[in-house]
Amino acid sequence: MTEFRGVIPPVVVAEHEDGTFDAESYQRGLDRMIQAGVHGVFALGSSGEGAFVTPARREEILRATKEVVAGRVPILAGVIDTQTDRVIEHVKQAEAIGVDGIVSTAPFYALGGLPQIERHFRQIHAATELPLFAYDIPVCVHVKLPPALLMKLGEDGVLAGVKDSSGDDVSFRFLLQDNERAGHPLSLLTGHEVVVDGAYLGGADGSVPGLANVDPAGYVRQWNAYMAGDWETVRKEQDRLSDLMRIVMVPTTTTGFGAGVGAFKTALKALGIFESNQMPEPVSKLTPAEEEGIAAILRQAGLMD
Amino acid sequence: MTEFRGVIPPVVVAEHEDGTFDAESYQRGLDRMIQAGVHGVFALGSSGEGAFVTPARREEILRATKEVVAGRVPILAGVIDTQTDRVIEHVKQAEAIGVDGIVSTAPFYALGGLPQIERHFRQIHAATELPLFAYDIPVCVHVKLPPALLMKLGEDGVLAGVKDSSGDDVSFRFLLQDNERAGHPLSLLTGHEVVVDGAYLGGADGSVPGLANVDPAGYVRQWNAYMAGDWETVRKEQDRLSDLMRIVMVPTTTTGFGAGVGAFKTALKALGIFESNQMPEPVSKLTPAEEEGIAAILRQAGLMD
Amino acid sequence: MTEFRGVIPPVVVAEHEDGTFDAESYQRGLDRMIQAGVHGVFALGSSGEGAFVTPARREEILRATKEVVAGRVPILAGVIDTQTDRVIEHVKQAEAIGVDGIVSTAPFYALGGLPQIERHFRQIHAATELPLFAYDIPVCVHVKLPPALLMKLGEDGVLAGVKDSSGDDVSFRFLLQDNERAGHPLSLLTGHEVVVDGAYLGGADGSVPGLANVDPAGYVRQWNAYMAGDWETVRKEQDRLSDLMRIVMVPTTTTGFGAGVGAFKTALKALGIFESNQMPEPVSKLTPAEEEGIAAILRQAGLMD
Amino acid sequence: MTEFRGVIPPVVVAEHEDGTFDAESYQRGLDRMIQAGVHGVFALGSSGEGAFVTPARREEILRATKEVVAGRVPILAGVIDTQTDRVIEHVKQAEAIGVDGIVSTAPFYALGGLPQIERHFRQIHAATELPLFAYDIPVCVHVKLPPALLMKLGEDGVLAGVKDSSGDDVSFRFLLQDNERAGHPLSLLTGHEVVVDGAYLGGADGSVPGLANVDPAGYVRQWNAYMAGDWETVRKEQDRLSDLMRIVMVPTTTTGFGAGVGAFKTALKALGIFESNQMPEPVSKLTPAEEEGIAAILRQAGLMD
Repeated sequence: MTEFRGVIPPVVVAEHEDGTFDAESYQRGLDRMIQAGVHGVFALGSSGEGAFVTPARREEILRATKEVVAGRVPILAGVIDTQTDRVIEHVKQAEAIGVDGIVSTAPFYALGGLPQIERHFRQIHAATELPLFAYDIPVCVHVKLPPALLMKLGEDGVLAGVKDSSGDDVSFRFLLQDNERAGHPLSLLTGHEVVVDGAYLGGADGSVPGLANVDPAGYVRQWNAYMAGDWETVRKEQDRLSDLMRIVMVPTTTTGFGAGVGAFKTALKALGIFESNQMPEPVSKLTPAEEEGIAAILRQAGLMD
Repeated sequence: MTEFRGVIPPVVVAEHEDGTFDAESYQRGLDRMIQAGVHGVFALGSSGEGAFVTPARREEILRATKEVVAGRVPILAGVIDTQTDRVIEHVKQAEAIGVDGIVSTAPFYALGGLPQIERHFRQIHAATELPLFAYDIPVCVHVKLPPALLMKLGEDGVLAGVKDSSGDDVSFRFLLQDNERAGHPLSLLTGHEVVVDGAYLGGADGSVPGLANVDPAGYVRQWNAYMAGDWETVRKEQDRLSDLMRIVMVPTTTTGFGAGVGAFKTALKALGIFESNQMPEPVSKLTPAEEEGIAAILRQAGLMD
Repeated sequence: MTEFRGVIPPVVVAEHEDGTFDAESYQRGLDRMIQAGVHGVFALGSSGEGAFVTPARREEILRATKEVVAGRVPILAGVIDTQTDRVIEHVKQAEAIGVDGIVSTAPFYALGGLPQIERHFRQIHAATELPLFAYDIPVCVHVKLPPALLMKLGEDGVLAGVKDSSGDDVSFRFLLQDNERAGHPLSLLTGHEVVVDGAYLGGADGSVPGLANVDPAGYVRQWNAYMAGDWETVRKEQDRLSDLMRIVMVPTTTTGFGAGVGAFKTALKALGIFESNQMPEPVSKLTPAEEEGIAAILRQAGLMD
Repeated sequence: MTEFRGVIPPVVVAEHEDGTFDAESYQRGLDRMIQAGVHGVFALGSSGEGAFVTPARREEILRATKEVVAGRVPILAGVIDTQTDRVIEHVKQAEAIGVDGIVSTAPFYALGGLPQIERHFRQIHAATELPLFAYDIPVCVHVKLPPALLMKLGEDGVLAGVKDSSGDDVSFRFLLQDNERAGHPLSLLTGHEVVVDGAYLGGADGSVPGLANVDPAGYVRQWNAYMAGDWETVRKEQDRLSDLMRIVMVPTTTTGFGAGVGAFKTALKALGIFESNQMPEPVSKLTPAEEEGIAAILRQAGLMD
């Protein structure tokens, strides 16, 4: 059985200036991460534009991912959408192309309520043999997945794991403990690149750091130190990475996804990996001045000359 | 030029027990509303499942709408999605089938920010000749569209109108005043079926009441009284309709969309218009006990024996 | 028994430039409102700084209110605080000075929960013979008082009325209907000065408009038209008043209370009623440029030359 | 100069069944914590009812604290209130009784806005020579204190430290880094008892764990391990304490403060330290069944037989 464990970056998407998919840049970034030793990749997450790509773009991204990964590490694919049937259509597409696991949020926009969320995950699971991860991201779907529900779905074999982007470290700690006590049915991954060390201290199974698109080697070194019980290295690497994360504070012309993923794409452009820092509509790409501010941080971090 | 004015119900969708689209029930409900004198219909709104239907279902609903309306009143079609390109795909489909106007929310899930929202509406407008309505529904997209932005887009010819489901009547009143002062570029419709009378008092161009699926004649009578300046009838009709709206408080097994649209579908079933009160996954339909509670209110209102 | 009905403005506080209480300006404003025909006054509300005055200032304000009102209209006094015992201390002070009713919010900062809120109002009621109003102001206390709870407390004789500043006109309409059906145990007052006409259409017992500090005569005329069933005058007066309310949009150097009450105080200064537009710490008073913007609106409204 | 560093529990208040202050129980709890080796105490925090005690109770609590602490450790006193002048009155009282530092939140209920918050802290600082801590608790005051503002106030000598109860560990990590870079002007304390280990990994100066009222020795052992660089002990102690924290999940009859502080008081009663688990109005104390559930967890943790 596939193991989802270690550093599994959410892959950001490369686009040409005209908005078309830039497979070459995308694959260059992916290959660099695998070469750096990441333990899996997560395509079509929130950072990977999975919640707002068109069906055609979704197909392009999955095919390009599959091609370059070529079995070297497992692929998680986001199947994020407002409603169950729509999610299952994405699952079928992902199955056809061939991925190793899928990741779904709670339904959003209108179809909330805990019984509905539980039913949502159960129906998705019933429609596929792929391992299913719950994506806990209240900032986007406006509901926090309660640990008790996650554990129930884990113990019932519905969920294989959780990607936690809730920002609620107290809840995540309780979940880690509950999971241990229940025999570890869930693979628990943190999405908070700035405090991965704390999640490891609590026993997390891995991390899904957007910043690993920029510095995969750092997160791999941190993981290795965690495996070796070398906490001083874990925290020092974290401090270095958290400093690097300041690139997301450079943008002043946009906020949220535009600033965060915009900064990652811009850093990848500065590093010569992406051709452009183009963003999906209606988000504008970062300005040349913002590009310069991000490059300055990369230089300070020793990632470029 | 098409006028969007008067009572324009957001049409709820009929489904068979197996979840397939029930065109016959759907068209029966639509025809009943048009016979009752409504001035337009709004397909694929939030109540009309527009934000969470699959592409195939979207096509079925639009075709069935077009067929039964048959030019008798204008059709507004929701083109609600997370991101601009996805919305434009829905616009192209709606154009191909033939509708009279389109309705888009702000982007949601992640791509927020006022400059992004403005760009979103401008890009949609650039992609179509259909009149474009902004759908202001913060409870679903988690941002309130500021009157100043709406007026700017109205005066620039980008927006033809606004469907206000913001719950912010103070903001709506200011918008009504601003619009009047600017020469009335926008058609301003309220989505709050319980206080339509207050919106009319402020000068609204119409209403989009979900409850009109159940009692279209009441909202038409209220509109006619408004046009005649007969405020006593406007408020009395409102009090009657607000009492009827209590059907959405009957459900105890679900909340939000499940309770509200669930109650409307259940009322339509009780009235013999819908075959089933089936809901889209992962929402369960209302229970027999809840059906009975809703029927009791309909009887009290004189809508059924 | 005292009747709380009609226009009952929440009185804003006058302060000298050095921050001390300006009894003369305060009483001038109050007397002007009573002369204009208001039906009561509400001291120490949110606009009246009741939630953040010191105990000494609270005493000064209540005494000055009592003195100038001199029995001409009933006085409501805010007894707003985080916790029950603190509220009851304010009630005792208000009783000692002599007021006609008291107004309490739900507890705030930490002690939430519906059973706690119910107990809070019951305990306050048990401690006094004064009529008790519930102040529904979720923007400040971060909980909406449910109509069902308000009706229960009204029917039990705990509450004499509700000051609704919830911004939720749908809920208020349901409350108006429930209250009517129950024999009208509650006096229901709207706090939304921009849509008072809609509240009257729904049958409200009165209004508590902050803007009535600036233009009491307008709200009195509107009330009289309501009593006469002259809805055209009600809505026209509302449109005029809502235009005047634009003074709260002038401030750019502050927001919220600072902008709203800051604009009212500044208007009163421009009208020669208040000596200063001084605000309580840590809020800065509006700037001279903002004062000029507000004066321009007052001139346009014909309130000053 | 007094150092605020290490484990500084927020002291919960003891009350007799009739609601009067139980100085004996309160002092017993405090003395037990000091004997266990805590490095300071924080009276009148949120857990210590500082935001909702009456002025007389505030005096009683401070005097009892001063008396039993008797100079053994520094005392921090909460001066939490809605507005600056009210806070300064509390500061004067705390100065008169004799404390070593004061802790203030941002203003709440209505007087928000970042410039106002900055002015609030500056005015408090100007009124006292006591070291001033900012209490970052958005769940209560509904605003998050931005790291940039905290650093500015720290570098200007206005703030001596921060008690972080924001739940935003990403922001806290950035603050820790900024503070280090600026020469460590601020003492940075975490208030999240469940993930103290992560905060220590990031370099926090200490913790303010409510649970330390129940198990002070555990938090002291954890601190000592942190000082020794023994991370395995730090995390193991944390796992044990986080398990113990499950006592706050026992209550089903109340939520929030009532459940959290209610559970702490109930545990202290079970341990024979508090006479009663009485709560401040309008909060009910936990039920006998809930008491039993909490005792079961204490037994499992080996804290009682």
